[in-house]
Amino acid sequence: MANQWIAGVDLGGTTTKIAFITMNGEIVYKWEITTDNSNEGQNITANIAKAIDEKLLQLGQAKENVIGIGMGAPGPVDYETGIILNVVNLGWKDNYPLKDSLELATSLPAVVENDANCAALGEMWKGAGNGAKNLVCVTLGTGVGGGVIANGQIIQGVNGAAGEIGHLTVIPEGGAPCNCGKTGCLETVASATGIVRLALKELNNDEVAGELHDIFLKNGKITAKDVFDTARNGDPLAKKVLADVTFHLGFVLANIGNTLNPEGIVLGGGVSKAGNILLDSVNESFAKFAFSAVKNSTKLALATLGNDAGVLGGAWLIKNKLNQ
Amino acid sequence: MANQWIAGVDLGGTTTKIAFITMNGEIVYKWEITTDNSNEGQNITANIAKAIDEKLLQLGQAKENVIGIGMGAPGPVDYETGIILNVVNLGWKDNYPLKDSLELATSLPAVVENDANCAALGEMWKGAGNGAKNLVCVTLGTGVGGGVIANGQIIQGVNGAAGEIGHLTVIPEGGAPCNCGKTGCLETVASATGIVRLALKELNNDEVAGELHDIFLKNGKITAKDVFDTARNGDPLAKKVLADVTFHLGFVLANIGNTLNPEGIVLGGGVSKAGNILLDSVNESFAKFAFSAVKNSTKLALATLGNDAGVLGGAWLIKNKLNQ
Repeated sequence: MANQWIAGVDLGGTTTKIAFITMNGEIVYKWEITTDNSNEGQNITANIAKAIDEKLLQLGQAKENVIGIGMGAPGPVDYETGIILNVVNLGWKDNYPLKDSLELATSLPAVVENDANCAALGEMWKGAGNGAKNLVCVTLGTGVGGGVIANGQIIQGVNGAAGEIGHLTVIPEGGAPCNCGKTGCLETVASATGIVRLALKELNNDEVAGELHDIFLKNGKITAKDVFDTARNGDPLAKKVLADVTFHLGFVLANIGNTLNPEGIVLGGGVSKAGNILLDSVNESFAKFAFSAVKNSTKLALATLGNDAGVLGGAWLIKNKLNQ
Repeated sequence: MANQWIAGVDLGGTTTKIAFITMNGEIVYKWEITTDNSNEGQNITANIAKAIDEKLLQLGQAKENVIGIGMGAPGPVDYETGIILNVVNLGWKDNYPLKDSLELATSLPAVVENDANCAALGEMWKGAGNGAKNLVCVTLGTGVGGGVIANGQIIQGVNGAAGEIGHLTVIPEGGAPCNCGKTGCLETVASATGIVRLALKELNNDEVAGELHDIFLKNGKITAKDVFDTARNGDPLAKKVLADVTFHLGFVLANIGNTLNPEGIVLGGGVSKAGNILLDSVNESFAKFAFSAVKNSTKLALATLGNDAGVLGGAWLIKNKLNQ
């Protein structure tokens, strides 16, 4: 048992993160390979298998030490069968039998899960969730994703669509169009893209001045990070955008809290790197919309694992499978 | 096994419903007793025990045939300990050890759960949920309550406050005050009280005429049922109120659907007796706010068990305990 490792994999459209992880969730070794999407994605699992074998050789470890491979993949996954239902950017056709392909390529028992769910499991196990069995994780990146954990297990939903936190509606009427076809989704205001959109709307007002406006003039564009950085410096326009973003984000998180009353709601993804200026402002809005018993018990927190959440969540899936 | 019964109990502020139920969920016999709140609620469990013993005698059945008692109670319950955390209208002080009191009084193994959760379990087992392991039930009565079932188990929440569907915010700014201390909660628009409030607001407009207005003039008041009845007859004002109510209700149910993607969301309680005029209109709003994969898989339905949901859910708790 002492030397048993799990291979945790976080499959992305451009790079694939791989790690050897102990049963206690310690990362022994981690690295990245390029995701090869060519040839209808036929090389993806073979490349992962090859990368694992090469790394074991390099580390002088026997393959027998690796007891399984757990992977997060970017799309809805049928957990029972390990089929990924539809994917963009990976070359696979819909309903690709990812688990079977991974087991065949690696000769290891495999478990596959949606990548946002994997990140949530990682945070539950070793991150901000701190072992909580009821946890909601929201990933604020280019888009907004989520994972819902109840009684220690991911809620999949009947169609694999549970945890679509980015597509909860925050502006019922007159909201901006979302990529999903609806309007007024959380993603349109709380993703990096959404934050920039809101800021640009303000910046296009003639009367505007200030630090964020200066950056806009200088660079011809702004980023979500610019908004947080200038808000931290007191720029009124950036503060206004931040207040708008966190008003809607706190609204959604409070309604999720009122539904599930989890121990924690964890904010991850690139936008969460803004840190306390984000968290404090979301907490204010959350307190306004949360039922009192929820406000007093469900805690908001920033994710702590960063890019390691996915590989750790993948490893947890194998650990959990062995424990069943 | 053939003759084994479970006692299902639905404890209310004025009456207590009791039923003998088979392991298959068939109600053999059901009746009601008055809830005696006097003397700090000291008589409540003793009266239930007495009622069960008397009924068994009357039916010529031995107490040995009853294998347990499962109860829904109006308040947040700590499921592990069977302590009811706080109650109104029953005389008990906070943190009343209901399970222990019930076991002592009846000499039967007892399980206690919140009443809205019990109703949800009843609908899951024998009602509109049709055995679905992932189900959300919303009770539209004087207030609005809810129960969330995932993987066949009630989600309690860290502070027992999961399923507070009535206190999800639907009007973020400028909503009506709610009994909970917040404003703009679902309960302020989709409870019987909320529907009447919205209608009265319209009726106080000078320009109003029509069937609902006539009822208001004649009776000096209106009910939620009046609103649905006159909407069904085409009264424009009633239709406007109905559209307003179901817009907000569909908004909340879609956001719950986007979070959990359950097989079904079941509408129960007195207001749900309005039937298809309610369901059709909520479905329209749900479709507008639900993520496409959720819209195609999470089905809205009317509760089918009526007043029996609570006792059946209570019985399910015992059945479930025995199966573990």
